[in-house]
Amino acid sequence: MRRYAQRTAGMTASEIRALFSVASRPEVVSLAGGMPYLAALPLDSLSAEVGQLIAEDGLVALQYGSAQGIPELREQICEIMALEGISAHPDDVVVTVGSQMALDMVTRIFCDPGDVVLAEGPSYVGALGSFAAYQAQVVHVTMDEHGLVPSALREALASVAASGRRVKFLYTIPNFQNPAGVTLAVERRAEVLEICAQHGVLVVEDNPYGLLGFDGQIYPALRSLDADNVVYLGSFSKTFASGLRVGWVLAPHAVREKLVLAAESATLCPPTMNQLMVSRYLATHDWKGQIKTYREAYRERRDAMLSALDQYMPAGCTWTKPDGGFYVWVTVPEGVNTKAMLPRAVTQRVAYASGTGFYADRLGSRQMRLSYCYPTPERIREGVRRLANVLGDELELYNTFGSMAGREVSGPESPSPNTA
Amino acid sequence: MRRYAQRTAGMTASEIRALFSVASRPEVVSLAGGMPYLAALPLDSLSAEVGQLIAEDGLVALQYGSAQGIPELREQICEIMALEGISAHPDDVVVTVGSQMALDMVTRIFCDPGDVVLAEGPSYVGALGSFAAYQAQVVHVTMDEHGLVPSALREALASVAASGRRVKFLYTIPNFQNPAGVTLAVERRAEVLEICAQHGVLVVEDNPYGLLGFDGQIYPALRSLDADNVVYLGSFSKTFASGLRVGWVLAPHAVREKLVLAAESATLCPPTMNQLMVSRYLATHDWKGQIKTYREAYRERRDAMLSALDQYMPAGCTWTKPDGGFYVWVTVPEGVNTKAMLPRAVTQRVAYASGTGFYADRLGSRQMRLSYCYPTPERIREGVRRLANVLGDELELYNTFGSMAGREVSGPESPSPNTA
Repeated sequence: MRRYAQRTAGMTASEIRALFSVASRPEVVSLAGGMPYLAALPLDSLSAEVGQLIAEDGLVALQYGSAQGIPELREQICEIMALEGISAHPDDVVVTVGSQMALDMVTRIFCDPGDVVLAEGPSYVGALGSFAAYQAQVVHVTMDEHGLVPSALREALASVAASGRRVKFLYTIPNFQNPAGVTLAVERRAEVLEICAQHGVLVVEDNPYGLLGFDGQIYPALRSLDADNVVYLGSFSKTFASGLRVGWVLAPHAVREKLVLAAESATLCPPTMNQLMVSRYLATHDWKGQIKTYREAYRERRDAMLSALDQYMPAGCTWTKPDGGFYVWVTVPEGVNTKAMLPRAVTQRVAYASGTGFYADRLGSRQMRLSYCYPTPERIREGVRRLANVLGDELELYNTFGSMAGREVSGPESPSPNTA
Repeated sequence: MRRYAQRTAGMTASEIRALFSVASRPEVVSLAGGMPYLAALPLDSLSAEVGQLIAEDGLVALQYGSAQGIPELREQICEIMALEGISAHPDDVVVTVGSQMALDMVTRIFCDPGDVVLAEGPSYVGALGSFAAYQAQVVHVTMDEHGLVPSALREALASVAASGRRVKFLYTIPNFQNPAGVTLAVERRAEVLEICAQHGVLVVEDNPYGLLGFDGQIYPALRSLDADNVVYLGSFSKTFASGLRVGWVLAPHAVREKLVLAAESATLCPPTMNQLMVSRYLATHDWKGQIKTYREAYRERRDAMLSALDQYMPAGCTWTKPDGGFYVWVTVPEGVNTKAMLPRAVTQRVAYASGTGFYADRLGSRQMRLSYCYPTPERIREGVRRLANVLGDELELYNTFGSMAGREVSGPESPSPNTA
């Protein structure tokens, strides 16, 4: 229909949805989604807390609030960010409806159609969705096992400049990256910041997993090293509860002002009840202890996944070894197309996110993201076993019939960003 | 800063914020905001309900959900819309973070920069903000006391076509309009729809106040008369609780698909807890009785405002007489500029929203919006009395010193859309 805006041209996902309604059946082990393991939460005391909140403070909790978010929560957010070496003022924090909204707002205020965003290759599917919604072009920057490669960043900047386009920002997930599971080496951080500052390119640091390092290690945030040129995105989705949709953005003052105006036209204000609930939780619960509980649960699951991969995966497969976060990034041997294989995997009762969804340029057909955050260790082992069988069958087909170049590869690639 | 996107050029509001932090002091009677009268809610039973929700269903309530919203709530939303004669399927409903997000999503999928949106003059300030965020141009259509004037709509369409621009949709608030307080006459509704259909122009019907008619009257929704060419926006902010930020959009199937994709890139999903809370409230509470309670409270306040206006306002002022909703639209005599007068009114401990905020084209300097939704009837009377004194002083100045053409009129004009 010619009535739609041009930006809708890139919006298609119906196949994905159809597949993932199948993939969410209980008999399927889903290694596809990024749903946190909420069973670790103290539901009884949260229940009492939220009941009290409405009884005592309901006229505030159920009423409109400011577009920027409630001041007390913004102060608490600054205390959390201090754990990563960030020194920030609550005035420069904007509470958002999950950090997805923060991403959307940052893109809204910076990107005109055709502007370039640099992002790791692969990168978070939800971020790519926001960039596409504003018709920004994504140029991927190579990563290795120590994260973003500084020389590749320089090359990408040079090549975009040579093409006459403008880079608006570098989007990076420095810690336990989604989907690759790697972390930007501490010794690279200053260099990445310096390169961006030299080129007048803002850094957008997305850090939902930073407190989920399995050995309790906390890396210095990019924002802690450069307060003037970094916009920092944080979230309670992985450290507390995703269904509340409470995230935030910390930005230099002038940027923060624009973000508030953009947020007001997007949602008026974030839900007051949810903000007060998070604020009370932080004030009355041992939230650091809760994060430790999460970390230990995820470490156990990571261990289960890595050992199952070792035990079951066919020769020629390789994968990353995350020391925090939710994800392992697997590369399969030549001849297997992970996007084409996905429907067959689901038939064999295992689901994953195929690699193509994490690239704006259709790379990733030999990669897949496996999430260990949600299923139990036993289910993870069983899921990897099933996946290895499917892969084995694919490889046998390839070895028997040769190249799959002629086969259908238009299947679904990925679920919605965090669910399914 | 040249780094920002072009759309940020229209984003400025800092003066407003500074003023309204003063206006929100308790000694100021604010007739400016659109905050609902939540004291009418049964907080004790809501407290028990939400506590139970987390205890019984916390793993769902605190987890990610689908971008479209939970199916049970979408079914209940269809039952509510049936009260206005709408026959809809839950598949065509998308739950949003307040209807502000619905507005933003609709604009996102339809408007390229330079596209035209038709809207009543005056129109909702938050809608104008969303249109500006996507660089859509607003052309206002004249209203009278029976709402949008069909002949004016035809003229606007002809004049936009003559200028070579494309109209993407008509944005209209047919019932108890914000800010004008008028209602589109039932006998005009089919004509407005027919004109739009003839011109291939979509109708976006925003209906937050439709169930708040003071005599219990419910007008047929535009959507009930034309299912194919109307996108309908609804909200629980005025009939239940604004701080939950739960609204929705009902759209023809093809449009709905695009809206879900747009919503996913904007917030991933609306907060699950809030949706479940609304769903439980609808299932277990006498929500129709609650709406009746709201209606009666607002009718009493409307009466207080109209009688105070009659009693106190200087000669030459006129105002609308709403039979539902939250707002009275006042026109003041020549010589008074409501934007310039606002700081002086706040000094006299009364606040309102000046008319200019409700026009994209800087009209409205002789108008103001008075809200009767939040203060008690006594406070409303006192606020109108103070306002009348301020107006009297302005008119005396004008009569003594003549035209105000040379006076400063760059003051603030309006609070954020619903708050303050």
